[in-house]
Amino acid sequence: MFTTSTKVRFAHVDPAGIVFYPRYFEMLNGAVEDWFEDAVGQSFASLHLGRKVGTPTVHLEVDFQAPSRLGDVLEIAIVPLTLGESSCRLAVTFSCAGAARLRVELVLVCMDLASHRAMPWPEDLRAAIAPQVVAA
Amino acid sequence: MFTTSTKVRFAHVDPAGIVFYPRYFEMLNGAVEDWFEDAVGQSFASLHLGRKVGTPTVHLEVDFQAPSRLGDVLEIAIVPLTLGESSCRLAVTFSCAGAARLRVELVLVCMDLASHRAMPWPEDLRAAIAPQVVAA
Amino acid sequence: MFTTSTKVRFAHVDPAGIVFYPRYFEMLNGAVEDWFEDAVGQSFASLHLGRKVGTPTVHLEVDFQAPSRLGDVLEIAIVPLTLGESSCRLAVTFSCAGAARLRVELVLVCMDLASHRAMPWPEDLRAAIAPQVVAA
Amino acid sequence: MFTTSTKVRFAHVDPAGIVFYPRYFEMLNGAVEDWFEDAVGQSFASLHLGRKVGTPTVHLEVDFQAPSRLGDVLEIAIVPLTLGESSCRLAVTFSCAGAARLRVELVLVCMDLASHRAMPWPEDLRAAIAPQVVAA
Repeated sequence: MFTTSTKVRFAHVDPAGIVFYPRYFEMLNGAVEDWFEDAVGQSFASLHLGRKVGTPTVHLEVDFQAPSRLGDVLEIAIVPLTLGESSCRLAVTFSCAGAARLRVELVLVCMDLASHRAMPWPEDLRAAIAPQVVAA
Repeated sequence: MFTTSTKVRFAHVDPAGIVFYPRYFEMLNGAVEDWFEDAVGQSFASLHLGRKVGTPTVHLEVDFQAPSRLGDVLEIAIVPLTLGESSCRLAVTFSCAGAARLRVELVLVCMDLASHRAMPWPEDLRAAIAPQVVAA
Repeated sequence: MFTTSTKVRFAHVDPAGIVFYPRYFEMLNGAVEDWFEDAVGQSFASLHLGRKVGTPTVHLEVDFQAPSRLGDVLEIAIVPLTLGESSCRLAVTFSCAGAARLRVELVLVCMDLASHRAMPWPEDLRAAIAPQVVAA
Repeated sequence: MFTTSTKVRFAHVDPAGIVFYPRYFEMLNGAVEDWFEDAVGQSFASLHLGRKVGTPTVHLEVDFQAPSRLGDVLEIAIVPLTLGESSCRLAVTFSCAGAARLRVELVLVCMDLASHRAMPWPEDLRAAIAPQVVAA
């Protein structure tokens, strides 16, 4: 299972002293970038800028389970649940020292950035993602 | 039905020329602020800082239907779907010139910022929200 | 003198209850967008995407004079101080109900987005900016 | 000399493919957090939340020397230039593989978060910062 981590920064925290939830999606996008680079073998720079392939998020479901505070180190785990012709459903969990913070399911679509249309996953990406898929 | 609008700024747009989705949640939070101030009768400043009542988002479901581009003016409509003892489910739609962009359902919880625990909606807020509820 | 306004949102405010300063630069960039669209006659969408002309900021000086709080309505005034062959120095002030909040001087450069090199201001932009210049 | 590093993320990059400058200030604030924690010996969490001491930025000067792109790893170096009764001037440079990207001078003020007034640096912070000061 792929994991990465990030620290709750002053920039993430609201007047109530907890993470302002839109900041979780910046962390989430960063974790998906790390997953692509480290577990799929393709950085966002080479994917988007070199190959002109994007992976926009088309669906999100999120349960915010407990608040996070300044200085918390969040562990983010990513597991692909399904891999379609041109989509991929990911389960992502954020936790801190083993305690759950949020749980996300998101659907990415593989997109041709020239036409802005969905395209089948390139074979190298499919071959890298498929073995990671874990039934929900 | 409550509506507000916002413009897609340079700050919102990614290298593919479309809104980077975490920015939609900043717009969403701003629209919920407008709804509280204009349709519920309580600004976030007086609610959070004066009354020490917060309204964190505990659940989100989002369908991204079509991309938005720099300069688009987005109309954001908010309808409460259910009003519980201490929660409220909202449906929020973003559109541009009548074309759908995203659809969100979110659940807010009324929280005592001193104890960081859920609390029943204060009567004035309940009285303002209840007449707006539209069955899903 | 060109002015625009923006409201301090929950998204802008830090755990100390005041605007987190990087958020001022998002507001500043939005105000410069408004100035281009309303006072120079060219939206960022048409300038960047249509004409492939960018206006990156190459220098900034900022004095933070007093903190801003959730709900404050900030008036932002923009005055060009000098207009060079391919640069423009702007003075920008943020105030709330007449009280100063920050003062910025920034230098923009007109850039050809194809070559990523400075270019002379197009004549229509120069003609629109020149009459607004006020000696510092 | 204190250094930390950060990677240019999709979240940082604008439609022209380069870092949107307000994002540099989020990186800058994160680097100053790292400096406080690692080189001054006090995390922002313990400083702000525990001791109720803030360090707002009151002045900034920035030269943007060259653009940064998606995937660049930026090295950020921080050197204190002067240490006053309740202020500190820092020089911060961002570079990528040795090439300069931006140069910042900023002035922090030590602030009592209860009164929102400047206060003398606590002795432990002064003792940790003073030996790092390098005349400009």
